[in-house]
Amino acid sequence: MFEVIGERINTTFKKVKAAVIDRDGAYIQDDVQKQEASGATYIDVNAGARIGHEKEDMEWLLKVVQEATTLPLCLDSPDPEVLEMAYSMVNTTPMVNSISLEKDRFEAMMPFLKGKECKIIALCMDDSGMPKTVDDIVNRAKSIVGELEAIGFKRQNIYVDPLIQPMSVDGNNGMMAMDAVKAIMTELEGVHTTGGLSNISYGLPQRKIINRIFLAMMMKQGFDSAIMDPLDNEIMAVVKTADMLKGNDNFCMNFLKGVRAGTIKA
Amino acid sequence: MFEVIGERINTTFKKVKAAVIDRDGAYIQDDVQKQEASGATYIDVNAGARIGHEKEDMEWLLKVVQEATTLPLCLDSPDPEVLEMAYSMVNTTPMVNSISLEKDRFEAMMPFLKGKECKIIALCMDDSGMPKTVDDIVNRAKSIVGELEAIGFKRQNIYVDPLIQPMSVDGNNGMMAMDAVKAIMTELEGVHTTGGLSNISYGLPQRKIINRIFLAMMMKQGFDSAIMDPLDNEIMAVVKTADMLKGNDNFCMNFLKGVRAGTIKA
Repeated sequence: MFEVIGERINTTFKKVKAAVIDRDGAYIQDDVQKQEASGATYIDVNAGARIGHEKEDMEWLLKVVQEATTLPLCLDSPDPEVLEMAYSMVNTTPMVNSISLEKDRFEAMMPFLKGKECKIIALCMDDSGMPKTVDDIVNRAKSIVGELEAIGFKRQNIYVDPLIQPMSVDGNNGMMAMDAVKAIMTELEGVHTTGGLSNISYGLPQRKIINRIFLAMMMKQGFDSAIMDPLDNEIMAVVKTADMLKGNDNFCMNFLKGVRAGTIKA
Repeated sequence: MFEVIGERINTTFKKVKAAVIDRDGAYIQDDVQKQEASGATYIDVNAGARIGHEKEDMEWLLKVVQEATTLPLCLDSPDPEVLEMAYSMVNTTPMVNSISLEKDRFEAMMPFLKGKECKIIALCMDDSGMPKTVDDIVNRAKSIVGELEAIGFKRQNIYVDPLIQPMSVDGNNGMMAMDAVKAIMTELEGVHTTGGLSNISYGLPQRKIINRIFLAMMMKQGFDSAIMDPLDNEIMAVVKTADMLKGNDNFCMNFLKGVRAGTIKA
């Protein structure tokens, strides 16, 4: 099944930030319930935007979000202390967003991760910066998956993020991500791949069509999760249609359900 | 470059048939000019629907169509006699649609094809019927490409049609076509692949979104031509967006041109 990690509860979004400042739980809960109704399978929670307030904001958000949904959460913070607190609060096995191979960040995260039961997003990022080639991405994927396996993580709990980079920066960035996903899914059998889809269209107009077509092409490569907006009906229709075309939808039932619900439209 | 074979001049379409019966050249020419303006790179011409009149209808159509466009034509007939006449009339190297491995049809076409300069659509069809597996398709592709090479055709002039079959008939038909295209483009390096895209959605609702997402996924596999309706703006937007994402659009210029022209919309 394709995992839709709903990206909306993030204090970098102005309305979410305002709701967090005002402790407006109803706004947050309404958004979360809409994400769930639209097909999110994880709710990402990021409280990073108010410097100095992340821990208390995260604590409040987790309480409020879990009153509204039983979906698993994606705990989105670079701070092990915030994650430790968040982990202790969740009702369901969470996903952690994220770790990378950057030395300081990696070492800081290890004490938190050891012995934890969770899924984890592993970024193909290291101290030399963003990856520049498919081999770069695949080698980093192998390193980080190896490190996680060494402390007991199973591959099926690891979501490798190849770090999607904008087409506007380099015309090869689309193929680089697509080929990397294929290689990761083949050479590291059992892992998942995920990522921030909309990076691909940064700096270009009509971004949503780029995101949609890119997602369809990535799904053919084996990309089986994305951090995205579940309230965007059109990209959710791509998830369902591409899954159906890949043979993952018996008798096209999910597709037909989407058509009947009016969310999949030609 | 992705070849868009415009499928509209076909007497199985009611309005085209009526225009052919009435010898209404203006209707045909207007349609052809619209296809060209929308990005068709070939105009398919099929006069098969009026039994007993194919040759005269094809002759009239070719004259009328070539007054309206300098695009190359795709001569769409199973009848070598009609093709011989059509071939003698065209101003530009045409494509021929199509040959297959069905024994009677294949043998009847050989005398026409020998020594001709043209592109050709080669169907993965033989006397045992539609292909049932990826291997089936790839083996037939190898046979038909081998036969065409033996009489002097170069691979770059051969467009293999894997025969896209409906998802409504078998949930594996999407993956079968996608995997077959990848294998054909890899194992028969230099050939092209093409096909009637909309077969995939036969029997399902909201067909156009299925066709669009399928095209994006197929293009990732190397599918580099389709027989389709160039007046469908949304599927043409997929062609341009997917081509851009594959790195075939320097500085995203064609994509941006489509956005400015209003034909690519999020």
